Amino acid sequence: MVDKKLAGAGLRGQSAGETALCTVGKTGSGLTYCGYDVKDLADNATFEEVAYLLFNGELPNSAQLQEYKASLFIQRDLPQALKEVLKLIPADAHPMDVMRTGCSFLGNLEPETDFSKQQQAANRLLAAFPAIMCFWYRYSHDGVEIDCVTDEESIGGHFLKLLRGETPSEQHRRVIDVSLILYAEHEFNASTFTARVCASTLSDMYSCITGAIGSLRGPLHGGANEAAMDMIQKFKSPEDAKVQMAGMLARKEKIMGFGHAIYRESDPRNVIIKEWSEKLAHEHGDTSLYDISVACEEYMWDTKKLFCNADFFHASAYHFMGIPTKLFTPIFVCSRLTGWAAHVMEQRSNNRIIRPSADYIGSEPRKVMPINQR
Amino acid sequence: MVDKKLAGAGLRGQSAGETALCTVGKTGSGLTYCGYDVKDLADNATFEEVAYLLFNGELPNSAQLQEYKASLFIQRDLPQALKEVLKLIPADAHPMDVMRTGCSFLGNLEPETDFSKQQQAANRLLAAFPAIMCFWYRYSHDGVEIDCVTDEESIGGHFLKLLRGETPSEQHRRVIDVSLILYAEHEFNASTFTARVCASTLSDMYSCITGAIGSLRGPLHGGANEAAMDMIQKFKSPEDAKVQMAGMLARKEKIMGFGHAIYRESDPRNVIIKEWSEKLAHEHGDTSLYDISVACEEYMWDTKKLFCNADFFHASAYHFMGIPTKLFTPIFVCSRLTGWAAHVMEQRSNNRIIRPSADYIGSEPRKVMPINQR
Repeated sequence: MVDKKLAGAGLRGQSAGETALCTVGKTGSGLTYCGYDVKDLADNATFEEVAYLLFNGELPNSAQLQEYKASLFIQRDLPQALKEVLKLIPADAHPMDVMRTGCSFLGNLEPETDFSKQQQAANRLLAAFPAIMCFWYRYSHDGVEIDCVTDEESIGGHFLKLLRGETPSEQHRRVIDVSLILYAEHEFNASTFTARVCASTLSDMYSCITGAIGSLRGPLHGGANEAAMDMIQKFKSPEDAKVQMAGMLARKEKIMGFGHAIYRESDPRNVIIKEWSEKLAHEHGDTSLYDISVACEEYMWDTKKLFCNADFFHASAYHFMGIPTKLFTPIFVCSRLTGWAAHVMEQRSNNRIIRPSADYIGSEPRKVMPINQR
Repeated sequence: MVDKKLAGAGLRGQSAGETALCTVGKTGSGLTYCGYDVKDLADNATFEEVAYLLFNGELPNSAQLQEYKASLFIQRDLPQALKEVLKLIPADAHPMDVMRTGCSFLGNLEPETDFSKQQQAANRLLAAFPAIMCFWYRYSHDGVEIDCVTDEESIGGHFLKLLRGETPSEQHRRVIDVSLILYAEHEFNASTFTARVCASTLSDMYSCITGAIGSLRGPLHGGANEAAMDMIQKFKSPEDAKVQMAGMLARKEKIMGFGHAIYRESDPRNVIIKEWSEKLAHEHGDTSLYDISVACEEYMWDTKKLFCNADFFHASAYHFMGIPTKLFTPIFVCSRLTGWAAHVMEQRSNNRIIRPSADYIGSEPRKVMPINQR
C-alpha cells in the first residue's frame, strides 16, 4: 500500500469523515447545527433544545422537550463515591483535570454497558457535569459540601445556583443558556476529533468524553476565554488597553481570544455574546470591563485585522455573572459535551477505526549492540 | 479554502504527520522502533532499554540504564489519595476504566506543570501503572491492600510480584519483559493518534495518556488478547477447536487475534510470543492450551489465509503465567505508555493543532420554528 503523503500539518483542510451535525465557515452562515444558524438558535431556542437537536437531528416539540428536561432533572445528583473522589482533589488542581477525572470515575460506577445505552450515558453526563464542577470547587475552595440538587429548571440555571448558592436572575439564566448554545458544537475541532478517534475503536462513551476533555484542556483549544480574562483584568482603562496591547504585539506575545483556525473575517458567535456582555455590564452598574473589551476589539481590528472569536466577550460576560475565571473552560465542557456525544454516536453509526499513517523520518535499520559496547 | 475530500474511511493510508519512532510493515522488516527490528530488541534488550530508546532515540549504555532503572524504581508507590480512589472502584468495573481513572486522578496530584517535566511525568506513569492495576485488582477481588513496593528490579517482574504476591521465576520475568517490548510502540494506531491529537492542543501528558487509554479500551483496538483467551478456553482439544471455529466462521462470528489493519501476510510479533508460549506450556506441564492455539492458527491459515497477530499467543502465554484475563489489556497499557508518551513528546517538538475538516451530509439551511408550531 502506498501511503498518501502528508497534505497539511495538523490535517488542515483534509476531510477526515462525514458529519450531519455542523457546518463551520460555509458561505452565508458561519456556524450551523443540523441546518440551523447558531444565531437563530441563540435567539429562539434553549440549550436543552439544542442538546435534543444534536442528539436527534430535529428540534423537540413541547412534549418532547418537557420529557427530556424532566429526565435530565432527576439525574443531577452525584453518587457518594464520586463525591468522595472529588473531595480528594486539592484546590490547586487544574479544573479541567477535575472534570476529566470526574467523568472517568463515573464511568466505573455507571458504565455504558452497550451502545443501546449511549443516549443514557450522554444525558447522565449532561445532567451531572455542573455538579462535578461545583461540588469540587465549593468543597476545595470554600470547605462547603454543597447539595448537588437544585430546583432550577435549566442546566444553566442549575449551574449558577450550585456555584453561587442563590437563585440566579432571569437575565443570568438566559446568558448562561446562550453561552451553552454557542459552545455546543463545532465540527471536527481537536477535542471532537479526539472523541471520534476514541469512538472509532468502539470504546465506551465515558472514554470518548474523558479523552475530549483532555484535549479541550490544551491552551490552543479551550482556555482562550480564561486567558482573555487574565489579560483584560490587567488593563485599567480603554486607553490603557490600547497602550498595553501595543506593547504585547511589539513583544510578539500571543493575545488570546482573537482570530480562528477556520473563520477568516469574523466569528458568528462573537456578536451574540458581545451583546449579552453589554447588557450584563449595565446591570452590573460598572461597564469598565466591557468598555475595555470593546477597546481591545477595535485595536486588534485596526492594527492587525484580527476579529474577536467566541471566547473574547465570554470573559467579561462570565465575570459579570460572578463566575471564577478558572471555571470558564469547565463550563465549555458542560456545553460541548453535547457535540462530542453526538459525534460519538454518528461515528458509531458508520464506523471504521481511525488509523492514519505517518511519514517516517527516523533512523535507518540498525542492529542492537551488546550493552557493554554502546 | 477548498477542503480535500475524504480519502479512505478512517484516514486509512493517509499520512497524518511525521515520526522517527517506528515503522510498520515496511519491506524487509515488519516492525522497527527507532530503526531496530522488534525481534532484535526482544532477543537482545529489556523493556527498560526499549523505553529509554523510545524516549531518547538511542539505546542506553550500562550507566544510563542503571540510572534510569533506579529512577523508575523509587517512583513505584502510589499516593494515599490515589489508593483511596482505587478502593472506591468496584470489582465489576472494567479494568481499563480503572487504568484511565488512575492515570487521570494522578494528574490532579502531580501535574505536569510545564513541558520541561514531560519526561518526569512519563517515567512516573511507567513506574506507577503496575501498582494502579494491581492495587485495585487485589483490593477489589481479594480484599487485600497490597504494598505497592517490591524488590523486583524490572517493571515486568514488579508487576508479577504485585499481582501474585510471590517472587516470579526467571522465565516469567523474561516473558513478561518480552511481552512489554512487543506491545511498546506501533506508529499511528488509534490510541497513539488519540494521544497526538490531544498533545496537539498543548494539553498535558496525563490528558494525552488518559485519552489513549480510553481508545485502547475499544474492542477494535486493545482487548483482542482477552477475546482470544475467552475463545480458546472454550475449546476442549485441537480437534474441537477446528470444529468450533468452522461453526463460528459459518455463523460469520468475529474471531479475534487474527489479521491486522496494516500487516498483510504475518505479524512479526507473533513468532516471538508463540515461542515463549510454547516454553511456558512445557514449564506449566499441561500444553493443551498451547496445542489448541496452534490448531487455531493452522485452521485460520488453511481456511482463510489469516495469520495470528501479536495478540493471539499472548493469550496462552499470559494464562500460563497466572495472569487473570481481565488484566491483559491493562498490561498493554503498561507497555504502550512508552510509545504514547514518546509520540506526545514528538508531537510537541513540531506541533500544529490537529483539526481536520469534514464532509457535510446534513440538513439544508432552515429556520427555527416556534416550539408550539413544531
